[in-house]
Amino acid sequence: MHEVQPVRSATIKDVAERAGVSLKTVSRVINNEPSVHARTRERVQREIDALGYQPDPSARSLRSTRAYAIGLVYDNPNAHYIINLQRGVLSVCRSSGFGLQIHPCDSASPKLADELRTLVQRSRLAGLVLAPPMSEQPELIRSLVEAKIPFIRIISARKDPQDGFPCVYVDDRDAAYAITEHLIQLGHQRIGFLWGGREHRSSPERYQGYEDALKDYGIPLDRKLILAGDYTFDDGFRGARKLLALKDRPTAIFGSNDEIAAGVLAAAHSDGINVPYELSIAGFEDSPFSKQSWPALTTARQATEEIARHAAQRLIGDLQREANGEPARHANEGFSPELVVRGSTAPRHVAQAPRGGGGRRKAGV
Amino acid sequence: MHEVQPVRSATIKDVAERAGVSLKTVSRVINNEPSVHARTRERVQREIDALGYQPDPSARSLRSTRAYAIGLVYDNPNAHYIINLQRGVLSVCRSSGFGLQIHPCDSASPKLADELRTLVQRSRLAGLVLAPPMSEQPELIRSLVEAKIPFIRIISARKDPQDGFPCVYVDDRDAAYAITEHLIQLGHQRIGFLWGGREHRSSPERYQGYEDALKDYGIPLDRKLILAGDYTFDDGFRGARKLLALKDRPTAIFGSNDEIAAGVLAAAHSDGINVPYELSIAGFEDSPFSKQSWPALTTARQATEEIARHAAQRLIGDLQREANGEPARHANEGFSPELVVRGSTAPRHVAQAPRGGGGRRKAGV
Repeated sequence: MHEVQPVRSATIKDVAERAGVSLKTVSRVINNEPSVHARTRERVQREIDALGYQPDPSARSLRSTRAYAIGLVYDNPNAHYIINLQRGVLSVCRSSGFGLQIHPCDSASPKLADELRTLVQRSRLAGLVLAPPMSEQPELIRSLVEAKIPFIRIISARKDPQDGFPCVYVDDRDAAYAITEHLIQLGHQRIGFLWGGREHRSSPERYQGYEDALKDYGIPLDRKLILAGDYTFDDGFRGARKLLALKDRPTAIFGSNDEIAAGVLAAAHSDGINVPYELSIAGFEDSPFSKQSWPALTTARQATEEIARHAAQRLIGDLQREANGEPARHANEGFSPELVVRGSTAPRHVAQAPRGGGGRRKAGV
Repeated sequence: MHEVQPVRSATIKDVAERAGVSLKTVSRVINNEPSVHARTRERVQREIDALGYQPDPSARSLRSTRAYAIGLVYDNPNAHYIINLQRGVLSVCRSSGFGLQIHPCDSASPKLADELRTLVQRSRLAGLVLAPPMSEQPELIRSLVEAKIPFIRIISARKDPQDGFPCVYVDDRDAAYAITEHLIQLGHQRIGFLWGGREHRSSPERYQGYEDALKDYGIPLDRKLILAGDYTFDDGFRGARKLLALKDRPTAIFGSNDEIAAGVLAAAHSDGINVPYELSIAGFEDSPFSKQSWPALTTARQATEEIARHAAQRLIGDLQREANGEPARHANEGFSPELVVRGSTAPRHVAQAPRGGGGRRKAGV
């Protein structure tokens, strides 16, 4: 029989020595604080496991009173956009030990800056991810900078705005150009355009893509085919009813997002207009509806979850670099939505019933 | 000219005396702590405004280190359900000064109890709102009780389970009965049923409503018309393809939620089957898709936002009562989804093309 050795419990000092790090670093790993590099965290955890070190729970409760959570700020009625935004940010929160507080708000509220300061202070948030349109409000951004609240913006822009504040930017204009070009190449000349909400910078960007494509292909703008509205199904429905009642109605309608395009599709159905043979419809977002509708919608794939993931990585990365005394990064990342062609767009019918419905004539393309 | 009086700044004591409350209560109002009754909060705020009292910001930062946030725990791929859940809980958080952390999780994870304990501890959450199916896992509930974590459950049940733990319950069975009865009253006898995920108690509840209605109307169960699956579009599509390929195919299909029904609608479209004249379709939830699809879906209106609001009110009310030393409430609230009839269901066609498509015969109803 072996003699039983008295077992000395491993201490935090043993762990620190074997891992070659400071006591403070071991303590950070134990408390799951986010300011530790993944590789260091792994090394420390290996030694904790190897030594069977068990931290004293009462010591753990003495840790910093700071709550490790970030906030996600948005104002958007589009459920799928929001869920994908949350998914992307959450995936990064998970892997870095942060909680996520959500904060839908009214982007038009004059008290928004106060509201966000109170939110950050009361909930002790480490930083904010700002979705459009809040991310695109210069005054709000200034007040967050003054209040020293770390943030990352998700914005619509052709290129890095290089304004000194961190963002990920999405080139809506380029994708809207691709959609319009696709319709033109199918032979459409009278292409309706339904705007999204003006408070979103993506709205003029998408409009600009449409206008640029028409210009490049020598198709004159017809103001009657361009209607203001919001990023909603109802505005898509109403707008389409107006466009389809025109004497010389469009043969294609580009809705600024999939919700609008869904409204256009419903208006066409309710008017007994065949999609895509009498009317082509395109949206923007690649929402589940766009895949599940009949016909499925041609759209632009906006990788919201991926964009949100990159935004959260940048914010949390910056927070960790700051905690470790490292310099901040300055490069902003850009994304381009991709054209996705589905059944809702088709070549302009060469033999098309003119207004009134009687007879058939050849239409010059 | 009047002599200028030296202005003595109002103190917290002045506010407390005039409002007739303790210093601690004034301090709670200033710090926006949720444990103050709305009427008291108003009275104190009125005196603060009247006296022009300005709290010392450095004193404010000495407040309790507890973060006033609750957590919302869910595992559900349905974006609209989640957004409505979040909206309901958020509306209560807003009015009572709480933040909301969201925590999607894997309901099948064996480490879920540990995960939630860590979440509550690390983020200092005051309590949890549990959505199905987590809310319906007895072991998980037991471990939260042991860990003394306050929670409220949203569950599917015919009546108050009276198990000693707080919940709001939704009578899915009753609503599924109403949908099935509606189809029967339209003359349908061969009604397909597509199940939702078995981990949700709502799935057997909805199935039971279907079975009960068939039994009450003397319609024999046909196992070939009942298919297992999940609460997803893809399972609805796959299930419908199977049912529509049967020799004696159903004239109506009841999908256990709107996502499933959307899949059924797409399958019918892709097979060139007219909805509702050749096939009636019903869903469950009253999602935006159910209003926007063509035809719009007959469904059951599940007031998710309202249900979530009541759940959050109960949780936060209990927390406030506990903080004020008041006894807890014991009554649980129940909800019944309502039948919503839209264009996707219609009387069974009396003159219907039999299988094979050739000829027409009168079908006995």
